[in-house]
Amino acid sequence: MSRSLGARPVIALDAMGGDDAPEAIVAGAVAAKAAGFEVILVGDEPRVRACLPAGIDLPIVHAPTVVAMDDKPLAAKRLEDSSIRRTLGLIRAGRATAAVSCGNSGATLFAAVLEMGKAPGVDRPAIATSLPRADGGTLYLCDVGTTTDPEPHHLASFALLGDAYARTMGVARPRVGLLSNGEERGKGNRVVQEAWALLEKLPIHFVGNVEPDDAFRGACDVLVSDGFTGNVLIKTVEGTVAMMKAFAMAKVEGSLRAKAGALMLRPALHALRDELDWRARGGALLLGVPAPVVVGHGRSDPEAVRAAIGLAHYASEHGLVEAVARAVSAATESTPSGTDAQRTV
Amino acid sequence: MSRSLGARPVIALDAMGGDDAPEAIVAGAVAAKAAGFEVILVGDEPRVRACLPAGIDLPIVHAPTVVAMDDKPLAAKRLEDSSIRRTLGLIRAGRATAAVSCGNSGATLFAAVLEMGKAPGVDRPAIATSLPRADGGTLYLCDVGTTTDPEPHHLASFALLGDAYARTMGVARPRVGLLSNGEERGKGNRVVQEAWALLEKLPIHFVGNVEPDDAFRGACDVLVSDGFTGNVLIKTVEGTVAMMKAFAMAKVEGSLRAKAGALMLRPALHALRDELDWRARGGALLLGVPAPVVVGHGRSDPEAVRAAIGLAHYASEHGLVEAVARAVSAATESTPSGTDAQRTV
Repeated sequence: MSRSLGARPVIALDAMGGDDAPEAIVAGAVAAKAAGFEVILVGDEPRVRACLPAGIDLPIVHAPTVVAMDDKPLAAKRLEDSSIRRTLGLIRAGRATAAVSCGNSGATLFAAVLEMGKAPGVDRPAIATSLPRADGGTLYLCDVGTTTDPEPHHLASFALLGDAYARTMGVARPRVGLLSNGEERGKGNRVVQEAWALLEKLPIHFVGNVEPDDAFRGACDVLVSDGFTGNVLIKTVEGTVAMMKAFAMAKVEGSLRAKAGALMLRPALHALRDELDWRARGGALLLGVPAPVVVGHGRSDPEAVRAAIGLAHYASEHGLVEAVARAVSAATESTPSGTDAQRTV
Repeated sequence: MSRSLGARPVIALDAMGGDDAPEAIVAGAVAAKAAGFEVILVGDEPRVRACLPAGIDLPIVHAPTVVAMDDKPLAAKRLEDSSIRRTLGLIRAGRATAAVSCGNSGATLFAAVLEMGKAPGVDRPAIATSLPRADGGTLYLCDVGTTTDPEPHHLASFALLGDAYARTMGVARPRVGLLSNGEERGKGNRVVQEAWALLEKLPIHFVGNVEPDDAFRGACDVLVSDGFTGNVLIKTVEGTVAMMKAFAMAKVEGSLRAKAGALMLRPALHALRDELDWRARGGALLLGVPAPVVVGHGRSDPEAVRAAIGLAHYASEHGLVEAVARAVSAATESTPSGTDAQRTV
């Protein structure tokens, strides 16, 4: 289905997905091409071509329809000729090794499963991302976007995917926590309460409920949640950073001493911003499918699109998503008693 | 039921509620007494008395049982002689004007309703807190703790309470947003999707779905959510602050220039910490009941307990919770057609 590992990464880009599509998306692709990445644009050909600057040529695959941001994800099923379906179809056809979309993330998940199927042993794919922790480690979050009303067995699938992702990124024995509003067993909403019993049966190092502040301080390596709460969590991090920056600036305004201090701190603060800013990180990875799909932010500007292409290229070159799929497959084969995590969606 | 407005505030304190109760709680009460607040301790008398330093006397009301942190909230119904029930009973009896508990927050809600009833027009009380926004305004959050699996009509109640809270705090026409993972109508989990139709019928300035990063930047004054997600949100803010601090320190370590900058910025950073730290803010307010109840953090240390008592005193002195109750009552009377928000729990 996908090119053999080691083949040069080719990124299929949904040119119509995103708040500022196709203009911002095509501009990001042009920047990525200039940086040496190989990109195929997918979308309404005349509109996409009109966004290309004179003298710049990129391959375009025509797709007459679009799944809009406010469409139900299932629209991806009906719209076989949509840009997101054709973007992922390029992987199935062996013409691309990875894909990027900044459009409807639920539709991207559906389209990925429709075009490529799920990886063996995967119940429900998930979108994963990572954040720096206060103790210097990395926190892997899964799901952060598509499954807003999961059943408990979906959280078991996210736990397996998050565990495999962290191990693939070099964490030897990831501590997997269940995102909750209290650490005691019995805390959490209904789904969290019921998921506990499933997670403790999985072949992972399950550490129980973890509150977000403890997770950021280092209580776990993987944080499992429904896609609604996970998405709120990462956008709260973004908002807190913006709020702290504005607040610190306001305090600094009043003091010459603080102003001088802020100037001297600027390089350190910029390094922090780069680590936290989704524009610099590019997007989140869809896990549990056979090939890398990067889900970019709906508000992606050209810089963010370029970073998302870079992430897809990296994942493709290193076989990241394939390694996660293999790890989940191995983990589910080792528990043949049939956990809920093995149900199909 | 409660003392008339203007009476000197007397704070009933659940001495047995909290991870480090009764030691940390009593120590906070002693500090509050030294600062001029009037406090009544409620709990297992011998244990509470043993925590009092020699020569310090505070009134103690005996309560032989405790609702533990990992008990179901409904335990407050069965345990009529528990510290949380007797704490709130002091308000009903006219012996206290406000209450504080750092124990099981769901049990605190139940006990408050059992002892005092709900304020007129209130469907479901909620825990509210506030955070600074990047634009200099204040973001009021409601619910942040007790109702982890609400029905859509509960969110309508939280919207009315949050609106009344913001107006009571001086916001002329609060913009009320529904916390979601996307701003388009139709985004969100099932409860958010269904709540939209109820919120748009309320006599409030409803601005639709709001993502947390937009809320922090100033898109709304009140953010309505279920208690699970709201609690995750405020603990994510805490965790992000801790993470940024550690990260900035690590960057600063490597650079003499940055180290000097950090030293000069210290006063500004401390002011920011005070605004964000729950230890300094003391806790969150229970809204929709007839008198002020402050829900402190389970991990409260004496400093946090003292701040929670200060918040209860402030709310009591200014009739804050009573004003919110009046505002909700007026709002629900103005829509006699019977919205879902008027159902009883």
